[in-house]
Amino acid sequence: MSAYHPLSEQEAIELASEITEVFGPEARLTSREIGDGNLNLVFHIRDEHSGRSIIMKQALPYAKVVGESWPLTLDRARIESDALRIQYKLAPGLAPKVYDFKSELALTIMEDLSDHVIMRKGLMEGGRYPHFAEHISTFIANTLFFTSDLGMNQQEKKLQAGAFINPELCKITEDLIFDDPYTVSDNNDYEPAIEDAARALREDAELHLEVALLREKFLTQGQALLHGDLHTGSIFVTPESTKVIDPEFAYYGPMGFDIGALFANLLMNYCGQAYWIKEDDARSEYRSYLLSTMRDVWNLFEAKFRTHWDSSCVDRMAASTPGYQDHYMRRLLQDSIGYAGCKMVRRIVGLSHVADINSISDSAIREQAQRQALAIGTALIKLNRTASSIEQAVDIAAGTSAG
Amino acid sequence: MSAYHPLSEQEAIELASEITEVFGPEARLTSREIGDGNLNLVFHIRDEHSGRSIIMKQALPYAKVVGESWPLTLDRARIESDALRIQYKLAPGLAPKVYDFKSELALTIMEDLSDHVIMRKGLMEGGRYPHFAEHISTFIANTLFFTSDLGMNQQEKKLQAGAFINPELCKITEDLIFDDPYTVSDNNDYEPAIEDAARALREDAELHLEVALLREKFLTQGQALLHGDLHTGSIFVTPESTKVIDPEFAYYGPMGFDIGALFANLLMNYCGQAYWIKEDDARSEYRSYLLSTMRDVWNLFEAKFRTHWDSSCVDRMAASTPGYQDHYMRRLLQDSIGYAGCKMVRRIVGLSHVADINSISDSAIREQAQRQALAIGTALIKLNRTASSIEQAVDIAAGTSAG
Repeated sequence: MSAYHPLSEQEAIELASEITEVFGPEARLTSREIGDGNLNLVFHIRDEHSGRSIIMKQALPYAKVVGESWPLTLDRARIESDALRIQYKLAPGLAPKVYDFKSELALTIMEDLSDHVIMRKGLMEGGRYPHFAEHISTFIANTLFFTSDLGMNQQEKKLQAGAFINPELCKITEDLIFDDPYTVSDNNDYEPAIEDAARALREDAELHLEVALLREKFLTQGQALLHGDLHTGSIFVTPESTKVIDPEFAYYGPMGFDIGALFANLLMNYCGQAYWIKEDDARSEYRSYLLSTMRDVWNLFEAKFRTHWDSSCVDRMAASTPGYQDHYMRRLLQDSIGYAGCKMVRRIVGLSHVADINSISDSAIREQAQRQALAIGTALIKLNRTASSIEQAVDIAAGTSAG
Repeated sequence: MSAYHPLSEQEAIELASEITEVFGPEARLTSREIGDGNLNLVFHIRDEHSGRSIIMKQALPYAKVVGESWPLTLDRARIESDALRIQYKLAPGLAPKVYDFKSELALTIMEDLSDHVIMRKGLMEGGRYPHFAEHISTFIANTLFFTSDLGMNQQEKKLQAGAFINPELCKITEDLIFDDPYTVSDNNDYEPAIEDAARALREDAELHLEVALLREKFLTQGQALLHGDLHTGSIFVTPESTKVIDPEFAYYGPMGFDIGALFANLLMNYCGQAYWIKEDDARSEYRSYLLSTMRDVWNLFEAKFRTHWDSSCVDRMAASTPGYQDHYMRRLLQDSIGYAGCKMVRRIVGLSHVADINSISDSAIREQAQRQALAIGTALIKLNRTASSIEQAVDIAAGTSAG
C-alpha cells in the first residue's frame, strides 16, 4: 500500500488498526467516508468495542469547485499535518492531535472531533461559545508569536519557513482574495442584483491601492507560520472546547491575515444574523455578542502576545527598544483590519461564498446582507493603515446598515 | 577527488583543465593561490600558451576574523554560484561568468577579472568610473525587479526564495549590522577616542526604534533575491567595466538593503576622501563626484526599475493600480536610506571596518572621518521613514561636517 492511490474503506481500516495509541488488539473497526469528495477523502473510523474513534484524511490530487476539476498538489497533506503538529504543540488542546502521517498516501491520521460542530454552522444556529475568544486568542497568540522572529530561534525560523513554502495554495489566496474581486474575472460569482456594488469595487482606485499593499504583504512578509485559512469553517467548537482544523494553506506570511480571517467571518455572520433571527431584540443581542466576540478576540490576543513578548522574546532589539512593541502591535491591528475587509469582499463577489449569507432564502434580505458585508469590508480596507483601535472596526460594523 | 577537502594547486590545475570553454588541449596551466585564507581558497589558473585564465574559488569550512576561527557552512558556495548565474543572466556582463560549480568541493570556477580593480581600492586612489552608475543601476534594477513578485512568476519566486534560505550568513548581518553597534558587545571594535559617540549610539532610543524596524524587514521581507553584501569591496571595476562578485550573502530580503550598501560605501569613501586628497579643490571636487555618483545610482535605478514595471510587470494589481508604483518606489528609497545609515554605523563601531577610513594614518584625521560617518549614518537612519527624495540624503552628507 505504498504508492499513492485513494484508499478503500477496507484499506483505511487496516491502516487505522496500527494506531495502537487509540485502538487495542480487541478493536472491531468500522469505517464511514464522510468527506465531500471535492478535495479530500475523510474516513471516520470507529471501534465498536471501545467506542473510540479517529479521523483519516487523505488528500485527493485534484480540487473540484463549482463542477470543475483542477490538479492540486498532494504536498498540501504534508504541510497540513506538519502545521497541525506545530499548532498542537504550541496551543495544546486547540488543534486535533495527529497520530500519524503517511507521506506516500498523503494521509493524516488524527483525533476525531465529531463531538464538536463546525463553528460557522453553530453561529448560524445562534450558538454561543463563551470560551471561544479565550481559546482562539491563545491559539493565534501562541502559534504566531512562537513561530516568528520574536519567539523562536531566528535561524531555525528560516528553515521552518522553507519547509512551509506553499506556492499552489498561496496562489489560490492571491488570486481569489487579492485580485479577482477587483477586476472582471471568470472566477467571480455574484448575483446580478449587486452588479452596481461589484462594479464599484472594480472602479475604486483608493480601494485598489490598499488591496495592492495588503497583497504585497501577503506575497513578501514572512512574519509567522500562519494557519492561512482561519475562517469559522476551519474551527470546530462546543461550548467548552475549540479546535482549529485544516491548515493546508499554512505558510510564512503576515500575522494579520489569520486574525483578519476571524474578524471577517464573525462579521459575515453578523451581516447574516440580521435576518436569521426574526425577533428584533434577540437579533440585536446576538449581533452585539458577535461584535463583543471580535473585540474580545483582539484584546485577549493583544494581551497574550504582549505577555509572550515581555517574557519570551528572543530578539534583543525587539525586547529592549522602547516603543517598538507598541509600534508592532498597532501594525498587527492595522493588518488584521485590512485583511478582514479583503476576506469579506471576496466572500460576496468572488468564487467562494459563505453560508451565513448565501443560504438566506429571501433574495431581498440576502441582497441586503451582501451589501452590508461589502460596505463593512470596503470600509475596513480603507481604514487599515490609519487604524489605531479595535473599536474603530467595531464601530464600522455597528454603524453600517444594509443597503 | 569527490569528498570535500581543500584543493592543492596541482588538483586545481587538473580540474581547470576540464574547462574546455577556456582552455584547449595544448594548454600549459599554472596556478597561483591568491586568497587571503580567511574564508576561501582562490586559485588563479593561467594558460601560458594562450594567456587565458580563470578563477577557482573554494569555500573553506571556517571563517577567520581577527585571529579567531569559527565554522561556516560550505553551502554558501552553492548559494554564491547559483546567485552569480542568476545575476549574470539578468545583468549580462555585470557579474563574472560561472563555468562550473562542483558541489562536493564547494568550488566555483569562473571568469577571471584580474584586469579589474576592487572598487574600494580604486576610489581610495581617486579613480573615476564614468560608467559605474549606469552599470550598477542596471545590475540592481534587473536583479531586484526580475527576482521579485513584480517581475517573475510568483510561484517560481517562492521556490527560488526557498533555495536561497541562508541562515548562517544572514545571522552575521543580523548581529553585526542590526544589533551589536547599539549595545555593549564583544563583537564591537572602535577606538577609545570615539567612546562618547559609541555610547551615544547605545543610548539613542529614537535610533533604536528605526534600527529595530529595519532589522525586522531584513528578517521578514522577502522582496527580491539580494546580493546581500553589495559594498565596494564586492565590485570589480575598470573605467569601462563593472563586475559584481561575491554574492555569498544572497537571500530573499528587502531590496533597499542592496541599494543602501552602495550608498553607504560611497559615503564612507566620501568621509575618508576629505583626508586622502590634500589639495582642497581636488578633494572638494572628488567628494562632489562621489555624491553625484550616489544620486545617479538612485535616479538611474529608479528610472530603469519603473521602465521594467511599465513593460514587464507580471502582477495585475501592481501593474494597474494608480499610485501603487509611486508608493513602492518611495518605500524603496526610504529603505535604501535607512539601510545605508545602518551600514555606515556598523563600519565605524562594529566588527568589520573599511579601509577608506581605517587606513588613514593620522589618528586625529581618522577620528574626524569616523565621527562624520557616524553623523551621516545616524542622520540617514532617522530620516528613513519620512524620506521623499534622494536629495535629502545628498544634503545630509554634504551638510555634515566632521566633528
